[in-house]
Amino acid sequence: MKIAIDAMGGDFAPASVIEGVLNFTADADLLLVGPKARLRALLDSSATNGSRHIEIVDATDVIAMDDNPVKAIRGKPNSSLVRCTDLLRDGEVQAIVSAGNTGAALAAGLLMLGRIPGIDRPAITCTLPNRRGQTVLLDAGANVDVGPENLLQFAIMGNIYAREILGIQRPRVGLLNIGEEPTKGTETVRRAYALLKEAPLDFIGNVEGPDLFNASCDVAVCDGFVGNVVLKVGEGVAEFLRHLLKEEMGSHPFLKIPALMLGPALRRIARRTDYREVGGAPLLGIKGVSIISHGRSNAVAIGNAIQTACRAVNHGIIDKIRTQISS
Amino acid sequence: MKIAIDAMGGDFAPASVIEGVLNFTADADLLLVGPKARLRALLDSSATNGSRHIEIVDATDVIAMDDNPVKAIRGKPNSSLVRCTDLLRDGEVQAIVSAGNTGAALAAGLLMLGRIPGIDRPAITCTLPNRRGQTVLLDAGANVDVGPENLLQFAIMGNIYAREILGIQRPRVGLLNIGEEPTKGTETVRRAYALLKEAPLDFIGNVEGPDLFNASCDVAVCDGFVGNVVLKVGEGVAEFLRHLLKEEMGSHPFLKIPALMLGPALRRIARRTDYREVGGAPLLGIKGVSIISHGRSNAVAIGNAIQTACRAVNHGIIDKIRTQISS
Repeated sequence: MKIAIDAMGGDFAPASVIEGVLNFTADADLLLVGPKARLRALLDSSATNGSRHIEIVDATDVIAMDDNPVKAIRGKPNSSLVRCTDLLRDGEVQAIVSAGNTGAALAAGLLMLGRIPGIDRPAITCTLPNRRGQTVLLDAGANVDVGPENLLQFAIMGNIYAREILGIQRPRVGLLNIGEEPTKGTETVRRAYALLKEAPLDFIGNVEGPDLFNASCDVAVCDGFVGNVVLKVGEGVAEFLRHLLKEEMGSHPFLKIPALMLGPALRRIARRTDYREVGGAPLLGIKGVSIISHGRSNAVAIGNAIQTACRAVNHGIIDKIRTQISS
Repeated sequence: MKIAIDAMGGDFAPASVIEGVLNFTADADLLLVGPKARLRALLDSSATNGSRHIEIVDATDVIAMDDNPVKAIRGKPNSSLVRCTDLLRDGEVQAIVSAGNTGAALAAGLLMLGRIPGIDRPAITCTLPNRRGQTVLLDAGANVDVGPENLLQFAIMGNIYAREILGIQRPRVGLLNIGEEPTKGTETVRRAYALLKEAPLDFIGNVEGPDLFNASCDVAVCDGFVGNVVLKVGEGVAEFLRHLLKEEMGSHPFLKIPALMLGPALRRIARRTDYREVGGAPLLGIKGVSIISHGRSNAVAIGNAIQTACRAVNHGIIDKIRTQISS
C-alpha cells in the first residue's frame, strides 16, 4: 500500500510530519509530498534516518491555513496538497494524509476526486474518546447547512466507519439533538429522525452531550456547524480542566508530592482525552481515502492519521460506502 | 422584594427546593408555590424550620418534565408554574424561579407575560465557568431557529446581563462560530457578524469553543440549538473527566493516599465546573424576571438561582433591556 503525506500541512510542518513518517512502523510505503531539497535535507539530518525508505515527491508550493480553499486548489497546482490529491486520483497512492487547511482538503476532495454516487455531501468524520472506546461524530465541519437526507447519508457512512475501522459489530447510531423526544430540534433534525428510523441502522434515537462520552452511542450525527462546535468545546473544556488542575496542584507546596505521585495517572487521562491521539478524521463520501489530521498535529498525531489511512484502505471503506449507498 | 419559587419544579422537588429556600439567607421574601398541605408538612418537619418565614401559595397541579409546554400552560392553570407566573404578572412578586420543565417556563413567559417591545425572541441566558470568572452564553435552548436580528438582540441582552449581574464593566461580546474569519459559518451567522460589527457593543468577532473557557470573551451568542449542545457537551466532558480521574485513582492502592491528599483540590475544581453552582439561567426578553434552574438542581442550585433573581431585580435588568433595545 502507498500513502501520500502532505509534508507541508499543519502548524508544526514539516518537522512534525517528517518525525511522524519516520516513526511509522506498520507496513506501508509512505510518499512525502513537498519541496524536495528541503525535505531531503531534513530527512538526512534526522537521527532515525535509514530506518525506513521514504520517497519524496516534489511540490514547490504550499497552501496556507488561511488561503481560500477553492482558489488555493485551482491556483496552486504545485502545492503539496494538490499534488497529494493528484497521486490519489491517478491511482499512484491508495490514501492521502494532510494536517493542513481543512477547507482546502475538502475542496481538493470534491473538485479533484468527486463524490461517491448517492452521497450529496462528504463529511469530516472524527472520533471522540468515551468511557469504553470511541464515539464517531460526523459531520465535524465540512457542511454548515444540511438537509435531512444529508444527515441520513452521514449516518450510513458513520455506521460503516464504526464497523470497519473501530471494529464495532453493530454500531448504535444516534442523532445529536437537544432532547430525547422525536419532536425536539430544528425541522431538519426532526425530519432526519423520521428518515433514520426507517433506515437499515441500529438507530437509538436522539442523543445529547453526555451520551457522546459515556459510551451510550457509537455514532452521532449532526450538521458540520454543530459538530465543529462540539469538537472545539470538548477541547476547550478538557484544556480548562487541565488548567484548573495545574493551578490547584501548584497552589500549595504540600500538594507537590501527591501531584507527582499522580503524574502518570493524570498523563494517562491527558492522553486519552488528547485529540492528537485519535488518529485523524477521514473525509468520507469522496472517491478516495483522504485523512485530515488536526492543524496542531504533532508526530504522534501524524502517525495515528497514517494508521487510520491504512485501516481505511485495508477495509475497502470507499467500496463499502459505494455498495451500501446504492442498495 | 418578593420572589415566587416553583416548589414542584425539578427532578428533586419539592425536597431540594424547600431546602434551598430554607437555607437562603439574603434579604427577600420567598413564596413557595405548590400543594399547600404537603409543603406545610415538609416545612414543619424540616430541621431548620423557624429560621425564616416562608409563605405558601397553594397550587394543586404539577407540570411534568415531559408535558407539552403550551398545552400544559393552557391546560393546568392551577399548576405551580402557572401560579408563579400569575403572581409575577399581577405584580405580587418581582421574580420567579423554577427548576421544572424549561419549555413550559418559556411558554409561560411568552404567553402570560409577553415580550419586551423590540425583542422578537427571548433567550435562555446561562453562565459557564471560565479561568477568571464566568462567560455568558445565550441562547441556551429557547430558540432552535433564529435569524441574524435575533442574534443581535441576544448580544444586547447578554451584554446588559454581564454588566449588571456579573459586574463586568465593558463585556467583550463574541459570536460563536467555527472559525475566526467573518466568512465562516452559516448565512445567518455571517449576517449576524455584520450586524454585531455595527452595534454599540465591544464586539470581538467570532469565538470558538476554547474561548468560552479561557476568559477571552465575556458574552458568547449563538442559536438555542448550538447553545444547548454546548451546555450539555460541557457537562458531558466534565463528567467524563471526573469518571476517568476516579477510575485512575482507584486503579492502584499506592494512589489512595495522594488521591486523598488532593481531595479538597479536586472538590474545588468539581465545584467550579458544576452547573448547579452557577445560579440559574434567566429567560431574558420577557416582561419579568424569570429564572430557570437546572432540572437536576439541588438545594445549592436553587439558592443560587434565587440569588440571581434578587440581583436581576435589584439591577432593574428588565428596564435596562427595554431602554437599550428601544434606543
